[in-house]
Amino acid sequence: MPTTPCAEAICVGTELLLGDILNSNAQFLARQLAELGIPHFFQTVVGDNRDRLREAISTAAARSNLLIFTGGLGPTPDDLTVETIAAAFNAPLIEQPDAVADIERKLAQRGRPMTASNRKQALIPQGATLLPNPIGTAPGIIWEPRPGVTILTFPGVPSEMKAMWRETAVPYLRDRGWSQGTIYSRTLRFWGIGESTLAEKVAAFLDHQNPTVAPYAGRGEVKLRISARAATEADAIAAIEPVERQLRHLGGRDYYGCDRDTLATVVGKLLSDRRETVAAAESCTAGGLGAMFTEVPGSSRYFLGGVMSYSNESKVTLLGVLPETLEKFGAVSAETACEMAQGARDRLGSDWGLSITGIAGPGGGTADKPIGLVYVGLAGPDGRVESQQFRFGSQRERDWIRAVSACTALDVLRRRLLDERDRDRP
Amino acid sequence: MPTTPCAEAICVGTELLLGDILNSNAQFLARQLAELGIPHFFQTVVGDNRDRLREAISTAAARSNLLIFTGGLGPTPDDLTVETIAAAFNAPLIEQPDAVADIERKLAQRGRPMTASNRKQALIPQGATLLPNPIGTAPGIIWEPRPGVTILTFPGVPSEMKAMWRETAVPYLRDRGWSQGTIYSRTLRFWGIGESTLAEKVAAFLDHQNPTVAPYAGRGEVKLRISARAATEADAIAAIEPVERQLRHLGGRDYYGCDRDTLATVVGKLLSDRRETVAAAESCTAGGLGAMFTEVPGSSRYFLGGVMSYSNESKVTLLGVLPETLEKFGAVSAETACEMAQGARDRLGSDWGLSITGIAGPGGGTADKPIGLVYVGLAGPDGRVESQQFRFGSQRERDWIRAVSACTALDVLRRRLLDERDRDRP
Repeated sequence: MPTTPCAEAICVGTELLLGDILNSNAQFLARQLAELGIPHFFQTVVGDNRDRLREAISTAAARSNLLIFTGGLGPTPDDLTVETIAAAFNAPLIEQPDAVADIERKLAQRGRPMTASNRKQALIPQGATLLPNPIGTAPGIIWEPRPGVTILTFPGVPSEMKAMWRETAVPYLRDRGWSQGTIYSRTLRFWGIGESTLAEKVAAFLDHQNPTVAPYAGRGEVKLRISARAATEADAIAAIEPVERQLRHLGGRDYYGCDRDTLATVVGKLLSDRRETVAAAESCTAGGLGAMFTEVPGSSRYFLGGVMSYSNESKVTLLGVLPETLEKFGAVSAETACEMAQGARDRLGSDWGLSITGIAGPGGGTADKPIGLVYVGLAGPDGRVESQQFRFGSQRERDWIRAVSACTALDVLRRRLLDERDRDRP
Repeated sequence: MPTTPCAEAICVGTELLLGDILNSNAQFLARQLAELGIPHFFQTVVGDNRDRLREAISTAAARSNLLIFTGGLGPTPDDLTVETIAAAFNAPLIEQPDAVADIERKLAQRGRPMTASNRKQALIPQGATLLPNPIGTAPGIIWEPRPGVTILTFPGVPSEMKAMWRETAVPYLRDRGWSQGTIYSRTLRFWGIGESTLAEKVAAFLDHQNPTVAPYAGRGEVKLRISARAATEADAIAAIEPVERQLRHLGGRDYYGCDRDTLATVVGKLLSDRRETVAAAESCTAGGLGAMFTEVPGSSRYFLGGVMSYSNESKVTLLGVLPETLEKFGAVSAETACEMAQGARDRLGSDWGLSITGIAGPGGGTADKPIGLVYVGLAGPDGRVESQQFRFGSQRERDWIRAVSACTALDVLRRRLLDERDRDRP
């Protein structure tokens, strides 16, 4: 094992370069390497072509010392990974009797004969060790073709690759000392603040070396990822915690949760803690908010249901919005949002009623009420009903506006529930 | 334009190397390059690190002549793509007044101030052209830093990257002669048939060379992708069409659409053609079906709205399901599905009422009514109400069951609308 491990994933397959499949193997390997604490600085994707694969191997061997290949181990003539690796390091290919027997047995199980193409899969470079495949016919290899370069190969089929990685590669890498310590990360999630504003608030942390803090922006959401490298996971967590506390403090109410939390799980927890229930009234999102609430297992404890009032008539008949309100202020207005929220609370008999009405586009925008104008209404247990206006920008796409509107409604309820919680506290 | 175009996608972002996100941008670019007929031989992923990004740039510039960068255009200090590219080709960075104004305008729309970090996004290498970002604040660049090397940069946010690619990069590449010939693909979509069954039905086509036919399986959906390589798109389409006709014929009613069609757009088209309307009643999906219907712009013509009856009470009060029905048959039953569909049709005054009730898990399954058991109810304009039972398998995850349930409800309505259409034809 070299003093500074440095892994590179090399994913082989023309189907990746044609965009036929998503490279989920690269993501899997990336996560696994992070967990093992093995630095991983490059990924390369190359097609089923001997010359270009060879070029990718030289480039990788010059800058990385752990080369992890996926793909190109199949029986067909365009599966070139092992023979090209062997050629790159001037090693002859040797047939492995164990591998031949294993392939023969697996094919027999499926009622298939051994063919010359299958037999090709039993060829490995001289000096390499078999990396057994518990599922498919293609074995991998573990090989140190020259000091300072270690090669592992895996099939492209994700289930086979993952099984081989976990069963053989992880123990091998740990035994050989590749995995020194671990990289542990925690992601803090924020809603209602822009990436650059948050980055400036926490600017002092962005130059930290260990743990590092990095901002990411998603769909309306901003995340700060804290990553620590340490000997053990417990040490890494201990290094993360003081930073996390300070970042959460700086984020204030815009901080809503961490790691696998979502706005829906956080709101669900707040509602459950208060033993309160909610109902939804949705116009432009038409079910998007309800679907978010109920992504969470057990959400039936606090989410009673709601109304998708996509037409004006349904706002009147199912929610009791007054026809005069629709006529005077329009379906996209603070007044309609309030009556929708009130209607959902009344009709469902919930503690809270949460409504959304807006213009998701691409049609329907006017100078007065542009695409991206959204009202969120909230009716509460104390009888108070209020609404907030949001302008998400008329250049946004329909999907984006709908998803961000539903999250924003959850966030409106979240902030209100936090206010209530703080007020109730002695 | 060099005589032999050769593109390389360079995706920049430590989050990719940590496995936090799946590299869907690489797949998008791969497909787009294939459609333009631009050979694409390598993809590189590199982190937010100046030295390694520079190393990736040199490697790419030595083997490829069209370098397409995604990521690292944000306002924060770890966004290094443009400055590192400029440094790699020894060019100074120049602030673009147009870009400053555009960023200022976009931030103002969202009620946010212009910060020094945002201003950084307006710096581009001397000699480069702005590649405008219609959505976000980060512009890209188009730059030929030396003869034989063309560089395009895009933000990592997929919606922004795709909009910029389609609006600016594609016309630019076509104008400059990068796109020679084309690979054109059409994806045929099937619902209600398994991948292996469909593959066996169309086995004779899977060995074709040009066009090629390849099966893919998604969430409950199966696709056949037909790809033809030809001098022009028209030639490729001409090669695809006879194959497409035969595959559609073999697929029968399980074939529902092609390319960007979804079950929701296809059902929407059938309803619009008949000038009929639909309302939804959703239990376990709680808005998922409504959200699918209304993903389609203009869906208010035929989708009136509906009820998310997540609780039993709401099934009674909002849909008129009889308490006796719930007591005798349970909420997940053919009888309840029928009364929900009827209730949605009655309350919303639509031609069709479509309902879903089922057990999405992870809790709530019994031996009698296991996880994955779902009923779809359909009430039609002729007063007929019927339901169908589906068993999606108790090993499936909640998300999968909910998404496939909503699609299945759309498919039930699709088949019925096709029956009606065929019956109405002379």
